[in-house]
Amino acid sequence: MPVELTPPALTAAVDELFSQNFAEAIDAVHLRERLLSGQKLRVKLGVDTNKPDLHLGHAVVLTKLRRLQELGHQAVIILGDYTATLGDPSDKQQARTLIDPQETKANALQVQEQILKLLDPSLTEFHYNSQWLAALDLRAITEIVSKVSVNHLLGHQTFADRLASQQPLMVHELIYPILQGYDSIQIRADLELGGIDQKFNCLMGRLMQRAYDQPTQDILLVPYLAGIDGQAKMSKSLGNTINLTDSAEEMFGKTMSIPDGQIIAYFELATLVPESVIEGWRQELASADFNPKEAKLALAQAITSLYHGLESAKQAETAFVNRFQKKQLPADLPKLAIAGHYPTVILALMASEQLESNTAARRLIEQGGVRLDEQTLDQPLSPIELKAGQILELGKRRAYKIATQAKHR
Amino acid sequence: MPVELTPPALTAAVDELFSQNFAEAIDAVHLRERLLSGQKLRVKLGVDTNKPDLHLGHAVVLTKLRRLQELGHQAVIILGDYTATLGDPSDKQQARTLIDPQETKANALQVQEQILKLLDPSLTEFHYNSQWLAALDLRAITEIVSKVSVNHLLGHQTFADRLASQQPLMVHELIYPILQGYDSIQIRADLELGGIDQKFNCLMGRLMQRAYDQPTQDILLVPYLAGIDGQAKMSKSLGNTINLTDSAEEMFGKTMSIPDGQIIAYFELATLVPESVIEGWRQELASADFNPKEAKLALAQAITSLYHGLESAKQAETAFVNRFQKKQLPADLPKLAIAGHYPTVILALMASEQLESNTAARRLIEQGGVRLDEQTLDQPLSPIELKAGQILELGKRRAYKIATQAKHR
Repeated sequence: MPVELTPPALTAAVDELFSQNFAEAIDAVHLRERLLSGQKLRVKLGVDTNKPDLHLGHAVVLTKLRRLQELGHQAVIILGDYTATLGDPSDKQQARTLIDPQETKANALQVQEQILKLLDPSLTEFHYNSQWLAALDLRAITEIVSKVSVNHLLGHQTFADRLASQQPLMVHELIYPILQGYDSIQIRADLELGGIDQKFNCLMGRLMQRAYDQPTQDILLVPYLAGIDGQAKMSKSLGNTINLTDSAEEMFGKTMSIPDGQIIAYFELATLVPESVIEGWRQELASADFNPKEAKLALAQAITSLYHGLESAKQAETAFVNRFQKKQLPADLPKLAIAGHYPTVILALMASEQLESNTAARRLIEQGGVRLDEQTLDQPLSPIELKAGQILELGKRRAYKIATQAKHR
Repeated sequence: MPVELTPPALTAAVDELFSQNFAEAIDAVHLRERLLSGQKLRVKLGVDTNKPDLHLGHAVVLTKLRRLQELGHQAVIILGDYTATLGDPSDKQQARTLIDPQETKANALQVQEQILKLLDPSLTEFHYNSQWLAALDLRAITEIVSKVSVNHLLGHQTFADRLASQQPLMVHELIYPILQGYDSIQIRADLELGGIDQKFNCLMGRLMQRAYDQPTQDILLVPYLAGIDGQAKMSKSLGNTINLTDSAEEMFGKTMSIPDGQIIAYFELATLVPESVIEGWRQELASADFNPKEAKLALAQAITSLYHGLESAKQAETAFVNRFQKKQLPADLPKLAIAGHYPTVILALMASEQLESNTAARRLIEQGGVRLDEQTLDQPLSPIELKAGQILELGKRRAYKIATQAKHR
């Protein structure tokens, strides 16, 4: 539940909405006034349900929405279950794999669950757009689309470019943005959130509300998050995502793989870390003798704990650090020149001269403490071959690289 | 019912389809082959039902269709009852007077009746497009419109012009031609008839049939008929129509009012007069000493008898000729210099010196045989003023122009 803020605190919070994780606002003056007025806004966010998993790119708007909830505003999530089943009927490839309504419903439930990891359930309502779209007949659709001119739609850069380059633009593609605008009427949105690439579609909500004599929504657009490759927008098709359904370890590890230059952007767009803390990291990163890994660990911690809780995030960090160190070791591992065939694992270990006794060796084996190239060797009396280059681990702290035995030792 | 034609007669009939009342055929070669093959074609004609009355402009396609029926082909009339009720929802003016479904049905029945004045009922089927359009939901509509590209639609001159001149083109206007094309699929049209201005919409039928893997219809386009003013296309909004519901006298009279230059066009486009007879009129009209009125009377006779039968057409002709002659007389009328006030109509008539006696004058008056400027004077003893320039009729055969009395007679 939101806390009541003092006027200066409210002003500061609103200012932050227009600075952190911010691309554009329409109408900015009007929106700021409403946010400062104490009025509770209905904040629309449209979410696709043609895939069951959201990724960190979606979290950019969701964290923004969470900030708005902290000021008392109502999140109104539109699950595009109906539009998901429409798909792109002109694409024969896709038509074959069209998502059936059943699957969409299942997706929608998973999406809701992921959204509620970030949002306050007491200030969140979900609507399926099938509620109002499934009932439309040709007469109703004609009336809806008659509110919008082709002239206006062709002002959309994407559409104009397609026509200019003589690539086909199919008629239903003109209808989708209109339907998105129609959603705003149905839920009486005061504000719509979206990525910067959704500007045209969000503006359609204003156009439709005007056509239906409703007060027009404001629009708040957020930047896009780069993928973990740091190159392009995070997107499933590019395979550069951190999925909200990723395990804590995957999430932590993928975050650690982003380029250093993305650390601050990820902090701002994908976490709830306060701006003042982010500012601290920004300064640290600017200094030459600071190791960015430290900031990145904090970032991975902040992201992972959002979706998996603090405890799991800590475990993920430990696991990561272990694996990370191990991966760094191979080059520096002490060598054991004991390559060769051994009748039993115990004898191989004794050859290493690292264990005090046969008994100690057997005990370690039986505890699962002996691994060869990450395979646990748990049969003390089985024959074994050690090859040059293999990694032999003895317990958690000792690892060695097998080397060929010196010929004339 | 169609007669079986000998091959040469069939060839001649088909040739005539491509010469008389003909603007364009697509695909002409394919269509000619099919017409000569003996195959029975399903010939589509779409008819609006937002007005109850057709006019002679509509008869142009109907006479063409009648010719096709004479070769054994099936007329498939699509009554646009559903599309009529859609109207143009972006036009607020019109939205207020939107036709309700009840009215559309009533219109459609009247339209059918008018169509059957020209067509052979045994080779005519009617379909309401509500049959398939009313059941469409957003999913179905999306699929249908996804078959057509905006690029293609903007190739339509009307649309391109609107965009170029920055006049609004609303989205539903793009959908209407697609629906018209969809009609062709529903009735499995082999051939669509239309006015030359329907070319784009008829082509949409081919496009849609291809998209739905149906054999594509051919198209036969007819010229437009000029209005009775001879200036523009006959159209209700220009008030220059001959309506199929006009009385025989109106129909005959309006036909007689067309400019002489339109006689042959009307023969070709709006009658079933054989080409050889029309050719005769063409030659007559070319000769200097021929009075076009004769041809026009035959034309009016041919048109009127199509809708009212031969007997009514003859009566209309008689009535017209009577009125016509009267209208031609004024310039040549014998003058009666008897302008002035008279205490009774009898005295005025006696002053004309055209009647033998008071008794004859009274009888003529009481029979309704006396008219002053087309007003019957049936009160023998009422006072009357005759003014210079007025026309006085005595019985059916005598008419005079009133003149001022000579001062010094």
